Amino acid sequence: VTDSFRVSGSSPGRTLRVAILGFGTVGSAVARRLSHPDRAPGIALTHVFDRRAAQKRRSLPTAAPVLWTSDVDEVLHGDADVVVEALGGLEPAAGWVRGALLAGKSVVTANKQIVARHGQALWTLAARQGRQLRFEAAVGGAMPIVRALGEGLAGDRLTRVVAILNGTTNAVLSRMDAARCTLVQALAEARACGYAEADPSADIDGTDAAAKLSILCALAFGLRVDPREIARRSGEWIEPDDFDRARRRGGTIRQLACAAFDARRRALTAWVAPVVVPRESLFGRTTGAQNAALVTGERSGEIGMFGAGAGGDATAVAVVSDLVAIARDPAAIVPPPGLTTSFTVDPAEFAFVPSDAAVAEAV
Amino acid sequence: VTDSFRVSGSSPGRTLRVAILGFGTVGSAVARRLSHPDRAPGIALTHVFDRRAAQKRRSLPTAAPVLWTSDVDEVLHGDADVVVEALGGLEPAAGWVRGALLAGKSVVTANKQIVARHGQALWTLAARQGRQLRFEAAVGGAMPIVRALGEGLAGDRLTRVVAILNGTTNAVLSRMDAARCTLVQALAEARACGYAEADPSADIDGTDAAAKLSILCALAFGLRVDPREIARRSGEWIEPDDFDRARRRGGTIRQLACAAFDARRRALTAWVAPVVVPRESLFGRTTGAQNAALVTGERSGEIGMFGAGAGGDATAVAVVSDLVAIARDPAAIVPPPGLTTSFTVDPAEFAFVPSDAAVAEAV
Repeated sequence: VTDSFRVSGSSPGRTLRVAILGFGTVGSAVARRLSHPDRAPGIALTHVFDRRAAQKRRSLPTAAPVLWTSDVDEVLHGDADVVVEALGGLEPAAGWVRGALLAGKSVVTANKQIVARHGQALWTLAARQGRQLRFEAAVGGAMPIVRALGEGLAGDRLTRVVAILNGTTNAVLSRMDAARCTLVQALAEARACGYAEADPSADIDGTDAAAKLSILCALAFGLRVDPREIARRSGEWIEPDDFDRARRRGGTIRQLACAAFDARRRALTAWVAPVVVPRESLFGRTTGAQNAALVTGERSGEIGMFGAGAGGDATAVAVVSDLVAIARDPAAIVPPPGLTTSFTVDPAEFAFVPSDAAVAEAV
Repeated sequence: VTDSFRVSGSSPGRTLRVAILGFGTVGSAVARRLSHPDRAPGIALTHVFDRRAAQKRRSLPTAAPVLWTSDVDEVLHGDADVVVEALGGLEPAAGWVRGALLAGKSVVTANKQIVARHGQALWTLAARQGRQLRFEAAVGGAMPIVRALGEGLAGDRLTRVVAILNGTTNAVLSRMDAARCTLVQALAEARACGYAEADPSADIDGTDAAAKLSILCALAFGLRVDPREIARRSGEWIEPDDFDRARRRGGTIRQLACAAFDARRRALTAWVAPVVVPRESLFGRTTGAQNAALVTGERSGEIGMFGAGAGGDATAVAVVSDLVAIARDPAAIVPPPGLTTSFTVDPAEFAFVPSDAAVAEAV
């Protein structure tokens, strides 16, 4: 990477031109945010790609000229500085992100699947291109956990991350608890509230949280973990009876994602499963579509976070925060995490209940 | 700022040379962290300034060559790339930070007073010099709230920050609650645990938290707030009886720092005071030297954080995280927050108890 390359492209003071790929829940929320009178200065929405661009363009009232297209090449070879990938799924999203970086654009993505599966290749490509790949929106919704692990706690050696990373499943489980209803009933309600997709199986079975946990393992421990290797137990069989049993023990049931790394043994434990947690713990108190995380560092002790984990507006905050970071320093170096695959995986113990000391202390 | 200036100084791949000003609790914890076999790669401790350098140098066993000096000019005009300011107090710290920036060094500071009082001038100087001024350690200990407000939630319009920002006072108040003892007794204990200084009056009377709140007002709302203008009520008169009364209402007493900004009226409410909070709320559950914060954004809703708020190790994590950020991107642009003084201040209502909806929901 030469320095002349770093200073090419946009520079501070110039308006950052933003293209959005995909005008679904997240893409449209970002577009509304960028078209709002109260938008961040120095950032302009210039392109929207959507397969149904012709129909959807009417839903975004904006005075500024935006190019709507259903031809992705008009975006990838257009004059936007940054591409926001809000398509979801592995392909064509991963290929288009690669194409945007190759065309010299920075990329902001909300897509946990492509970061979990292709993160290292894409980070390396971005660094080689002197461009940025940012993904705060891929994990934790509006809760800024990507920056917390990758930057704010970079000065510590982290040993454990326990978190609620799937807002849909959390809304369903806390609804089952509150209403003593079945999973099917709770899911129907979550769908009505816009928290669940038509097919929520990737939420309930832990696939979604495992992809996010894989990203957190890269940030927290420097490990390259294939999300498919993370042990998972599905929540699809949970019944009202299970909640009754948990309740009698002073607990409730939450889908937790847990990763612990023993640096001396170089051994990782990583799993996603519904487990019983104390009702008064951070996780027991996390209800609805919220996310929460408890991060343990050798020197920091336990650091906790919680916040809105799902919904277009919360995710759009994370996307726009990444855009603000690029607008502030278009030539910023976001070095690819130096990931290693030299570690062993210990068997998962699903019965594990986090100590949650930081919040349980006062109980 | 010319681009040729940005690429001068250190560059990625080169070792970042670090000087520490002040070998007290924070400075020595940072020095130990940088001298540990498990230290962050690419960062080397090269200078330590302390008035009692000759005596203190024996306490840091390190194989690497470190220049110990009691002459600050040897640091300010030496060959370190970054100066860590861990002196505390306004002067000479502010003058030396200015001197380090003028000499072309970046600065990492744990000093809330100089950021609160001279932040804008120092940020502007750093930007003009093409250098970085980072201060994660000035607020919240290991809890990465500076990055959360300044970067992670930059895409939202924030409306309120309520927080426990003084670990010493929180340790004292939660001890008074648990042991039903007097303030004097609780303070003696905090001193024995190393949480309280010889003169903790700036902690108990809210001066310390007001400086930190002023920094958060700059990050969250873009306001330049003189910390002396923030309404304060001291906790020095709190008695065991006050806790009894709070307990009967299901509450406890915490020193909260609160800032709310009404963007339409451009009116700020900001205060630090001991108030009754629900025992089961985020703040009621924050005990010992912990810090906690609840940030409200128009689109994110409520985002919470908590973690170790005092102690050398926790603060050192924040300092070293800032050093890692500089080592990763020595030429990063950290733009000075565009602060305004065009706002009015509404009278403080100390009786205010935060809704704490995000955590109270489950109760």
